[in-house]
Amino acid sequence: MSEERYAGIDLGGTKILVLITDAQGSVLGEERVPTLAAQGPDAVIARISEAVRAAAAHARVAVPEIRAAGVSAPGPINSAEGDITDPPNLPGWHNVRLARVLHEQLGVPAVLENDANCACVGEHQFGAGRGYRHMLYVTISTGIGGGVIVDDTLYVGASGAAGEVGHMGVAMSGPTCGAGHVGCLEAFASGTAIARRAREMIAAGGLPGTARLAEHDPPLSARTVYLAGQQGEAEAAAIITEAGRYLGIGLASMINAFNPQAIVLGGGLMNMGDALLGPAIEVARTRSFAQSFMDVRIVESELGDNAAALGAVAVARSRHAAGPAGAAQATEAPPERR
Amino acid sequence: MSEERYAGIDLGGTKILVLITDAQGSVLGEERVPTLAAQGPDAVIARISEAVRAAAAHARVAVPEIRAAGVSAPGPINSAEGDITDPPNLPGWHNVRLARVLHEQLGVPAVLENDANCACVGEHQFGAGRGYRHMLYVTISTGIGGGVIVDDTLYVGASGAAGEVGHMGVAMSGPTCGAGHVGCLEAFASGTAIARRAREMIAAGGLPGTARLAEHDPPLSARTVYLAGQQGEAEAAAIITEAGRYLGIGLASMINAFNPQAIVLGGGLMNMGDALLGPAIEVARTRSFAQSFMDVRIVESELGDNAAALGAVAVARSRHAAGPAGAAQATEAPPERR
Repeated sequence: MSEERYAGIDLGGTKILVLITDAQGSVLGEERVPTLAAQGPDAVIARISEAVRAAAAHARVAVPEIRAAGVSAPGPINSAEGDITDPPNLPGWHNVRLARVLHEQLGVPAVLENDANCACVGEHQFGAGRGYRHMLYVTISTGIGGGVIVDDTLYVGASGAAGEVGHMGVAMSGPTCGAGHVGCLEAFASGTAIARRAREMIAAGGLPGTARLAEHDPPLSARTVYLAGQQGEAEAAAIITEAGRYLGIGLASMINAFNPQAIVLGGGLMNMGDALLGPAIEVARTRSFAQSFMDVRIVESELGDNAAALGAVAVARSRHAAGPAGAAQATEAPPERR
Repeated sequence: MSEERYAGIDLGGTKILVLITDAQGSVLGEERVPTLAAQGPDAVIARISEAVRAAAAHARVAVPEIRAAGVSAPGPINSAEGDITDPPNLPGWHNVRLARVLHEQLGVPAVLENDANCACVGEHQFGAGRGYRHMLYVTISTGIGGGVIVDDTLYVGASGAAGEVGHMGVAMSGPTCGAGHVGCLEAFASGTAIARRAREMIAAGGLPGTARLAEHDPPLSARTVYLAGQQGEAEAAAIITEAGRYLGIGLASMINAFNPQAIVLGGGLMNMGDALLGPAIEVARTRSFAQSFMDVRIVESELGDNAAALGAVAVARSRHAAGPAGAAQATEAPPERR
């Protein structure tokens, strides 16, 4: 079955990545194009189709040879129907039948899953989560998202929304996250939270080093705060430490509730290394059951920017595996909920 | 298969409950005896065997007719081996091969699962959780425990410790739970936490109504605080409200991470009704994703004190279901991990 070919599509707010792979996730060809979301769904979907054709050409694969296409998209989505419902990152998109339209344009069955779940499946199938039967994936970036693998299968819950570990509560009061929840992990430990805290302190006359860095290389971001801390500004370093400690509370909640074999950490803030992860793991250790903490490997993602597209391949593969007749993948029925 | 008979055994710190049931969990006979844990494992296991024989006699069932016995015991346990490892509620017990010894004494295969997981399975199979494919169970009592049902199956995680939802973190600082974790749900919202907070306030000269009630009907418990609040002591009512709000943070974490169809709430503190659950559900609502909150039914347990024993029946049934030869249940091999 080494002849099986898949397309993995990562539809982001600013760019689209298409990978053509074999069934083992080896990349045979790729294409990157801008999303230009403001042009509306029709133009963007046409651009996705064109990028799939281009990536297939790079891979010397004829489009009809592609067994299935998987699409990773910002949530919320309706995975069962293959529809994008109301993504905050794609303004003006509302109930777009993405999987169905792609199927029509490419003649290839398409399935849809949200981006954090795709990255989770990607790391589990092809990356740092390989071999772990029960696994969590957490991406720490401007927001905090995640996914859950139970018994080697993506666990999506009642309506596909499971794995929102960034919105576990970590405090009674405090800042509000992008989704409007007071005191959740994302409100304390995301890149957005770190930058907001720094802006507050600068407005109050503090963090001169961070302010200077942001002036030279705007805008002020979590990375600015991290760099200022590395350059010796103690109050900037303390912001990163505090975010790490809240991340540790979240990790402890995950460890105690899920008793996973692994937690794979991805997202841009992983570049902060021990400055963030040191305090996180220390707090997680002291607030987890000893055996459960020993059971879990906390590891960094291996797939980087390819995680979501490769996970989309794995989702497409699992829903359109080679059957005896090979006919199932040509049906127009919507993909089944997993 | 209406002739299948099971024994469900709830081994608690102070009492032992044995139920003889059919495969549908209908109780045919029962027996209650004191645990007297200080007498040591041998005496307690002999008392369990005697109670099984007595309950079977009440049910007019011959002991060899019992297909399997399930035992609910305080954790931590080794479910795969059927051993009790080091339960804080059974002082002096250490690596007791409970399932194996019961098998020898009764001639009936025995399986072991921790008490919160058993109550979870009981509610899912026979109680308030019937029909929900993805479900959480939370018991709020002196401590806070729980269990997780994924795809109609008990989810136990890497080493059987999943579902410790009482130890999800809800604050950076604050009191410590019985397991030594700072700032977890149990440290804020358990019966122990409520009573401790009241004692602190009485020591500081507050809560005269609660203090008076505790004097008339010692010891001071969470129930004392609740009753004082019901009788008009505002500060006592505020303690219950605050515990409920922390419970709400925990519920929101569960809803966002698991997107379950139901959360079944059990344990002694359910007697507080809306005084505890009102603020809990309000906080859970404002801190959960709207769709996930709409997906979940938050319901009270239906099985009361029988939950753990009935869940032990369900665990025994699932591991010793009628096979074609009927021989499997006579093997001496340890029960398999689920």
